Amino acid sequence: MAEILKGAPVASALTERLTSQAAELKVVPTLAIVRVGDNPGDISYETGATKRCEKIGIEVRKFNPDPSSVLSVIKEINEDTNIHGCLVLRPLPDKNIEREACELLAPEKDVDCMTSKSLAGVFIGEGSFAPCTAQACIELLDFYGIELEGRNVAVVGRSLVIGKPVSMLLQRRNATVTMCHSKTKNLSEICRASDIIIAAIGKANFIGSEFVAPGQVVIDVGINMGSDGKLCGDVNFNEAEPIVKAITPVPAGVGAVTTAVLAKHVIEAAMLQ
Amino acid sequence: MAEILKGAPVASALTERLTSQAAELKVVPTLAIVRVGDNPGDISYETGATKRCEKIGIEVRKFNPDPSSVLSVIKEINEDTNIHGCLVLRPLPDKNIEREACELLAPEKDVDCMTSKSLAGVFIGEGSFAPCTAQACIELLDFYGIELEGRNVAVVGRSLVIGKPVSMLLQRRNATVTMCHSKTKNLSEICRASDIIIAAIGKANFIGSEFVAPGQVVIDVGINMGSDGKLCGDVNFNEAEPIVKAITPVPAGVGAVTTAVLAKHVIEAAMLQ
Repeated sequence: MAEILKGAPVASALTERLTSQAAELKVVPTLAIVRVGDNPGDISYETGATKRCEKIGIEVRKFNPDPSSVLSVIKEINEDTNIHGCLVLRPLPDKNIEREACELLAPEKDVDCMTSKSLAGVFIGEGSFAPCTAQACIELLDFYGIELEGRNVAVVGRSLVIGKPVSMLLQRRNATVTMCHSKTKNLSEICRASDIIIAAIGKANFIGSEFVAPGQVVIDVGINMGSDGKLCGDVNFNEAEPIVKAITPVPAGVGAVTTAVLAKHVIEAAMLQ
Repeated sequence: MAEILKGAPVASALTERLTSQAAELKVVPTLAIVRVGDNPGDISYETGATKRCEKIGIEVRKFNPDPSSVLSVIKEINEDTNIHGCLVLRPLPDKNIEREACELLAPEKDVDCMTSKSLAGVFIGEGSFAPCTAQACIELLDFYGIELEGRNVAVVGRSLVIGKPVSMLLQRRNATVTMCHSKTKNLSEICRASDIIIAAIGKANFIGSEFVAPGQVVIDVGINMGSDGKLCGDVNFNEAEPIVKAITPVPAGVGAVTTAVLAKHVIEAAMLQ
């Protein structure tokens, strides 16, 4: 029986700490959320983030511009000294506008790592806020007291929102990271040989029993719709759980920590500004 | 007997191709080299780079400012439309000036990856010039027809000039990279299990026979002074060479390719501007 690494206690502990930090600030920490269109996933994330932020004492200002006015909204946010952080729900419908928006946002307000400066900071290993979900993996591992230094970690997936940044965050903590992806040849072998697996590939139940080994910690970042119509992760939980030492559930695992990390970044941004 | 992967043929082939490209440009491709102080290593690199560039038809303009005028020199270079690329020999004596200089340089002239924008580009996997030595490893591997896709690569060292960027360049080519460093626990085991080793730790003769296995390709990026007063790499050549399939020598390996890569970046920058 593996330890189940739930996200809720991590989010609660963070929320408690952030609530007292917010109360000590001389300003009302404020997050702008920019959403283009009415994608249900975006709306659901916006709702969750708003709830979490308001609980902590962070004001949320919502912007829902037409694609043509995204850039002017970001300019407005940059100039508004009462806004400390800005989350743009991505992907935007237009890739070119998304690219321009990413470069336009003031780096000090970039709480989800969309600007070059933030990405470079994650790569270099200094300053800047990492993408919230990548940081959420680290917060969860830390909360459950899982040592990272000197541990071998297989990161499966190389997206810019999870795989790549979490690899750099783990390296910064002195883990030895193997960056795996769709072209990796002996993936199950690499996964079995590692101390920690971070699964972030977006394939339902992909990581089965042949990928895991006793003693391992498995962090499942995937959120997929299973063939039974239920949410599931990238890890086949039923197969992996009896074998490994600890595993995050989906839902209620890493995903539950993400909005708390977003709030953390907003508080930190407000402290710095 | 391993195949010895010398740098000179790689540099020659690049030089030949670049020379015809330079001749076809409507402008004289021009590189600015900024050197602060008279560090012998800097002077030696400047001399080598100048020789290589002039052979190809690239004009080199040398700047040797006081620490106090580095920033104004970079501003001048940014504004000069006849200069297409700029190399700042680092580290600079003052870390703060170095940081400011790195941010000040126009990204399109950043032929050695010092700006945030270039670093983010390497991390994201698009646009921007990688650090010349990291790119030199890739050029050398390509020249000798060494397949990267699906190969397991141990990168030893996590510096911002080699280890980190070469890891991303290899990943971009669909290799599976394990990013090793001083806190890696089972380093010799990880190295032995990989198809390719990139050694970039700056420790003379560190990678000995227990790190290598038959069939491997070993790229040695280290340039150290051995206890015998001779230049040597991070790999113990005498121990590794009889075991592996192919290995770069030090000197005359990767180092010989670096200035040709610098020239390549200048030509490409001139084409884009």
